[in-house]
Amino acid sequence: MTAVSDLDATFLDELATAVGSERLHVGAAQREAYAWDNTGRRFLPQAVVLPETQEQVAGVLRACHRAQVPVVPRGAGTGCVGGGLAVQGGVILSTQRLNRILMVAPEDRLVVVEPGVVNADLQAFLLPHGLFWPPDPSSARSCTIGGNLAMCAAGPNAVRYGVTRNWVLGLEVVLADGSLMRTGGYTTKGVVGYDLTQLLIGSEGTLAVVVKAILKLAPRPEARRLMRASFRTMAAAAQAVAGVMSRGDPPAALEFLDPAALELLRGQEVGVGHPQAQALLLLEVVGSSEDVDGKAREMMARIEPFDPLETLLAANEQEAKRVWAARYALSPTLTKIAPRRINEDVVVPVSRLANLVDGLAVISLETGVTIVSFGHAGNGNIHVNLLTNPADPELERRAKQALDRVFRLVLDLNGTLSGEHGVGIMKRDYIHWELDPSSLKMHQKIKNLLDPVGILNPGKVFVVND
Amino acid sequence: MTAVSDLDATFLDELATAVGSERLHVGAAQREAYAWDNTGRRFLPQAVVLPETQEQVAGVLRACHRAQVPVVPRGAGTGCVGGGLAVQGGVILSTQRLNRILMVAPEDRLVVVEPGVVNADLQAFLLPHGLFWPPDPSSARSCTIGGNLAMCAAGPNAVRYGVTRNWVLGLEVVLADGSLMRTGGYTTKGVVGYDLTQLLIGSEGTLAVVVKAILKLAPRPEARRLMRASFRTMAAAAQAVAGVMSRGDPPAALEFLDPAALELLRGQEVGVGHPQAQALLLLEVVGSSEDVDGKAREMMARIEPFDPLETLLAANEQEAKRVWAARYALSPTLTKIAPRRINEDVVVPVSRLANLVDGLAVISLETGVTIVSFGHAGNGNIHVNLLTNPADPELERRAKQALDRVFRLVLDLNGTLSGEHGVGIMKRDYIHWELDPSSLKMHQKIKNLLDPVGILNPGKVFVVND
Repeated sequence: MTAVSDLDATFLDELATAVGSERLHVGAAQREAYAWDNTGRRFLPQAVVLPETQEQVAGVLRACHRAQVPVVPRGAGTGCVGGGLAVQGGVILSTQRLNRILMVAPEDRLVVVEPGVVNADLQAFLLPHGLFWPPDPSSARSCTIGGNLAMCAAGPNAVRYGVTRNWVLGLEVVLADGSLMRTGGYTTKGVVGYDLTQLLIGSEGTLAVVVKAILKLAPRPEARRLMRASFRTMAAAAQAVAGVMSRGDPPAALEFLDPAALELLRGQEVGVGHPQAQALLLLEVVGSSEDVDGKAREMMARIEPFDPLETLLAANEQEAKRVWAARYALSPTLTKIAPRRINEDVVVPVSRLANLVDGLAVISLETGVTIVSFGHAGNGNIHVNLLTNPADPELERRAKQALDRVFRLVLDLNGTLSGEHGVGIMKRDYIHWELDPSSLKMHQKIKNLLDPVGILNPGKVFVVND
Repeated sequence: MTAVSDLDATFLDELATAVGSERLHVGAAQREAYAWDNTGRRFLPQAVVLPETQEQVAGVLRACHRAQVPVVPRGAGTGCVGGGLAVQGGVILSTQRLNRILMVAPEDRLVVVEPGVVNADLQAFLLPHGLFWPPDPSSARSCTIGGNLAMCAAGPNAVRYGVTRNWVLGLEVVLADGSLMRTGGYTTKGVVGYDLTQLLIGSEGTLAVVVKAILKLAPRPEARRLMRASFRTMAAAAQAVAGVMSRGDPPAALEFLDPAALELLRGQEVGVGHPQAQALLLLEVVGSSEDVDGKAREMMARIEPFDPLETLLAANEQEAKRVWAARYALSPTLTKIAPRRINEDVVVPVSRLANLVDGLAVISLETGVTIVSFGHAGNGNIHVNLLTNPADPELERRAKQALDRVFRLVLDLNGTLSGEHGVGIMKRDYIHWELDPSSLKMHQKIKNLLDPVGILNPGKVFVVND
């Protein structure tokens, strides 16, 4: 580890001038705190800046642009693909202190925030207005809005509300050369010019740094009801998902757990339904206090034709919490039992879920790699977890083989390699499996257009020049 | 009028080879049919092609690219801003014969279509599946999906469902040089790479030609209820709109008519509410047959605090049709009474509607130009109609002055110059009023990147090189 930053002194002076020396960190310990994210991989940045204003962000970008030093925008470091890691060194630009909620307008169903606002803090702020911002990654208690926008992150709500990009009206961003650009605006309709807002959302910090976001809000449902349904086979559960999604109002959440996931949880104090269940669905409906029970009954009626072993309608908030507990116990459990897990978030069309499930079983059997799957079934977005061990090179080799086969399978089923985690460094070498050469070429051209010097989060998403 | 096309013979041969001579028209009468759109302005193209396959579209683009001849993608010619007009001559590329519905997958809530499918035909096709595609421009009976995507067109549904761009999962497009590019895909979540789908939607045919679209579908509501509310003043109606939008489920439509609009309709056989009404709101709620009446009552309760002169809940489908008739009679009436009307579709945040309404009254008074306003109040998207007469140069001058003042007002209120019509040639000279210089520069760079020769719908949206 470098004890102090090895960046050029003139450049460090420029950074200090831009951001104020108290917001520039070059000490080893401080840099270490920004060297990690949810991937468990470590890349030590050469400096960390914590700007508090747009002007300071612009100053940092100008300095990095001039000196051709990489700059990595970073929220709370909860990402799953290394998007916030300084893989080529350079400066981590943390948005944590750009965390003001600037304005809320309930009639306009919008809120204006800085990127460092924590998702859960925003939701708490919106509560008295009867509104919420639908994107709900499982890291909501710590992840930032800026990170949500950069990755186009999502969670269970997506099945009903759509994804992050549907809930952004406009942005203010700093471009690679430090200039400011506004996109979109304060209205729920607007067709003047190209949609640069959407080009930037999900671009993983490779095109610009968001300094302000105008977010569209939804009315917070008055009431919710959680249901659980156990099935004899994964195939039956997958068919039930397709059945639920083929008609009527979508549920507010439609999650599933596979046999391996249920097996893992059986020893724990969480409800996993019928003892013979090989698959579990969790369904939530939302509505007004008057109509939510009718909606729950209607949803139950959609499931009945698929012959569940057992169904349960949570009687109250507490019971619902207990039922959700099974779903939320999975990630920590997996982290505990496997020395390493490859946690993917592939997506297939809902009608192909049964094929995916069948295919995963074959891959697990043939490679001898344990695969545990669960996730957002209503979007066909499955967290496929391959359990492996860095101390066992032979298993690691087979896990890599299994992963490649999972990705091929997903693409054969008209799916995508990532529904909500993004590409970052973890799927960069697979992106050409999914994008056609013409699209990849266009990505490279757009990247070069917006970031000609190549300082913005280099090494991520795709290879810029090949 | 040129009797036969004056295009170079070699180029015409290439076009004929690309598309088949029976799908290439150079006769004056045939070209005349493609010289007009809803703006009433006439630009005679030099040739018209009607490709039936992706390959034919690619061939046309390749020929135009080589010969540097403008090519104007065009749907049904229902646009309001000249987007489908050959303002610099060249070739009209009509998508009318690319009109197949290729696949529907109800479990995946998606349909795959070619761009020439008529919006209403798609809706009719989806009816038995209990699904629909939410974008509903008033031209739905004749406009095409390709046109809807090019302009990011919308209608009353937008207040509940969001706009066209929220209902597209992926595209296949032909780029300026004739190469094919796929964007997005078949899943409702997906974060692999930049969102090129959204960059293309609303780009008005200036970046690529859509040849296939994967559209996201919504469940068709079982039941709907229409309500009407009359108000003593426009200000009261505007406040009621803000009140309705500030909480709870959005209505499925929230339209308004101003005093001048009501005055125009009073002589006609359409219901316009209370005789002293100075403003009218139409509100629709949707739901299941069980819960829709409860929703209508809840919506009525949201309006009551704003002291309406009269409210009406349509008892049945027929009565609802009669109430809607007032809204739909307006455009034809205006076309009849005014030799020319400037029909704008500005948007302001809902909370600023009252300010917009007040400002329009002042502008009308001070310029002596009659202004009739109605439209999608729930989105703050107002059709501002300035009535003028080409035979009266003095009035025309004042109308232009009034228009400029309307645009300034809208932007001062944090609004946008177009909510659903687009820019085309009609607002091109105003676009720099709305976009900041940095954004406009980015538009120019992106245009040059995707269309370096400048053949795709030239002269539209913004000036490419200045």
